[in-house]
Amino acid sequence: MLMQAASPANIQRILEKLNTFNSDQAGGTTRVLFTPPELEARNYIKKEMIDLGLSVREDAIGNIFGTLVGTEPELPPVWTGSHIDTVLHAGMYDGMAGVVAGLEAIRMIQASGASLKRSIEVIVYTSEEPTRFGLGCLGSRALAGELSLEQAYSLVDAEGNLLPDVLKELGYDLSRFTDIAMPQGSVHGAVELHIEQGGVLESLGLPVGIVHTIAAPTNFHVTVSGQQRHAGSTPMHLRHDAFLACCEVSLKLEQLAKDSSSPDTVATVGKVEVLPGAANVISGDVQFTVDIRDSNYETKCSLVEGMRQFVRTVEVNRGVKITLEQINDDLPTRSDERIIAMLEQACQEKRIRYHKMVSGAFHDSMLVGRFAPIAMVFVPSKDGISHSPEEYTDYGDIALGTDILAEALLQMAQN
Amino acid sequence: MLMQAASPANIQRILEKLNTFNSDQAGGTTRVLFTPPELEARNYIKKEMIDLGLSVREDAIGNIFGTLVGTEPELPPVWTGSHIDTVLHAGMYDGMAGVVAGLEAIRMIQASGASLKRSIEVIVYTSEEPTRFGLGCLGSRALAGELSLEQAYSLVDAEGNLLPDVLKELGYDLSRFTDIAMPQGSVHGAVELHIEQGGVLESLGLPVGIVHTIAAPTNFHVTVSGQQRHAGSTPMHLRHDAFLACCEVSLKLEQLAKDSSSPDTVATVGKVEVLPGAANVISGDVQFTVDIRDSNYETKCSLVEGMRQFVRTVEVNRGVKITLEQINDDLPTRSDERIIAMLEQACQEKRIRYHKMVSGAFHDSMLVGRFAPIAMVFVPSKDGISHSPEEYTDYGDIALGTDILAEALLQMAQN
Repeated sequence: MLMQAASPANIQRILEKLNTFNSDQAGGTTRVLFTPPELEARNYIKKEMIDLGLSVREDAIGNIFGTLVGTEPELPPVWTGSHIDTVLHAGMYDGMAGVVAGLEAIRMIQASGASLKRSIEVIVYTSEEPTRFGLGCLGSRALAGELSLEQAYSLVDAEGNLLPDVLKELGYDLSRFTDIAMPQGSVHGAVELHIEQGGVLESLGLPVGIVHTIAAPTNFHVTVSGQQRHAGSTPMHLRHDAFLACCEVSLKLEQLAKDSSSPDTVATVGKVEVLPGAANVISGDVQFTVDIRDSNYETKCSLVEGMRQFVRTVEVNRGVKITLEQINDDLPTRSDERIIAMLEQACQEKRIRYHKMVSGAFHDSMLVGRFAPIAMVFVPSKDGISHSPEEYTDYGDIALGTDILAEALLQMAQN
Repeated sequence: MLMQAASPANIQRILEKLNTFNSDQAGGTTRVLFTPPELEARNYIKKEMIDLGLSVREDAIGNIFGTLVGTEPELPPVWTGSHIDTVLHAGMYDGMAGVVAGLEAIRMIQASGASLKRSIEVIVYTSEEPTRFGLGCLGSRALAGELSLEQAYSLVDAEGNLLPDVLKELGYDLSRFTDIAMPQGSVHGAVELHIEQGGVLESLGLPVGIVHTIAAPTNFHVTVSGQQRHAGSTPMHLRHDAFLACCEVSLKLEQLAKDSSSPDTVATVGKVEVLPGAANVISGDVQFTVDIRDSNYETKCSLVEGMRQFVRTVEVNRGVKITLEQINDDLPTRSDERIIAMLEQACQEKRIRYHKMVSGAFHDSMLVGRFAPIAMVFVPSKDGISHSPEEYTDYGDIALGTDILAEALLQMAQN
């Protein structure tokens, strides 16, 4: 066990310095992939890595690897890390906390003088946020072999730039693009620290969460067709109000999620368009989104089935047509039991109170989980807020999360 | 009783000619106040009036009066008429049917050779639709004394033109603006024929409706403030979803309207804005409209009270804040019992099957009702559709409505 604890002051120093690379004029943090502040932030993190004595390399999509070389560098390494890009007008913790925690964990492991069999790599994943190219997890997606150079040519930013052209202009070698993908078994284990982005840890008064599952979303685009009529001259019994059908489905989704046997089931109607959208007109058409997530694929499927059945009832009762277009239906990513056990043991030894929980948001770790055993460490988000300048996590909590992260990395690197 | 029936062919001829004055390029009817097609339509109607031998005048806001002079022209006259302006991309019946029915009724009365004590005036009310200046019933509002020249100066169109400037440019004498308003008792009685704009008559299979009440709306602008959170990482029990509160209120309004002891109670949520409006974000803010109408002011008030109570419950249960901003709360306009009796008697004598009903939409007659006894005759709208190129009413049904309109006008003019 590491004797030295993570330093909140170190974490604060790097996070605050990182936050100076920022194009936000309105008091938040904005750091968009391959814009000047993001490139400066990359250089700064590389400098911190070098200062720690890590060897630094980048792959052809800009994933940065800072390697603390082990005694048997040919063995599959241990990974940690997260991202440093942001959405527009965001906060200074989402992603960055995980990169900084990785650097601090390396410092602690080095300070302990422990001998490492495996290398430990701190990784900055390219563009976890979809801000610039409309698709998130670009770096980890490529690592998982799910973003070919051909697919990358379909990604275009708001100015019309293609991702591969941007990479080429920055000096990345596109001929090495096929080398990005990691084979199964090429990584021994990966742990990412991230802010929770929800209010669970805060509501429980706990500083650390250990993520047992990353809940992949099942998304629907729903269209309701009713009859557009005059709101004054159409009696209630002659109406086919598309919006009221949407209301019933939305409330049913809430009820199904609350009644689910899985405690992690959530369902959300977040985007709603009511047409024609006039006070004195009964809506004829409504489009809305459904976002369902669960740690348990079976209960997620049963919620979806419950929704489908209910939708049929609403169609009959209201004389409307409801179309459910399923966008995706991903399987949840389970954390590796052995890594979970290491994290739990570290909490117990260090008397850190923790909560085993699901990640409702998805992260680079979901894609890393396609080729490696993974786990995640969560630290509390004040008021559950993220993607906002109000995002806040206590440096002390990040340090506690880093304490158990470092223990797990060390243990994996020694075995 | 008039021996000659209204002629569907006459009605068709004038309606189809009127419909040639139209700026709609997309197959519908668009005739906006004081645009070239609307001015041409005004001239056409004046010509039809003159052809019938009516004396034509206009007041300072452009209301057109075609007068069939009675033997005692100093007595308060009898009125009929409607409007010829439209919303954008509308149909060819809403308003126009009532003007044409008035002209046809005059022709029938003239053809009968009946002697009239009172004058009968066919009126084209200026801009019943709010299309150009954002406020409807401009002409009838001024007749009711509810639109002063000073207030008219607050009305501005999308190009920045003030209503009085537009009137002046067209040659209307603004110094006569104060003469528009009609004193109480200055009109003996007024009957307007209009398409129903709802599906009641069609669903009953009846050609004519006699409107006993024009249900004035009570409108609210509702704001819900919840908590904007990540849809993946916020468990169901930690949510304060503004949209779901809106859903509950919307469905409750439907239930309250259906359960009302008045058969005419309707409640509609027609305009809904969900913010921030992203699939993976729980809505923090929702704004929506509530439109409540009823022939009975007491049941309307009791529905509003029911909504207010329910809103308080939703606020507590969901931990959201709901603000109800009341825009208006108008009293329903009751038709005059004597005119209703004349219309019913005419139906019975002519064996026309009819339905006594409420008008959920409001009309110029609501404002005329402020200073004169009124009633309305409805004719069926196919599929309940109006404000659309699909708007359709059978010329035969308009003729049946015109038959009873003419009887009532004649009877009033002789007494």
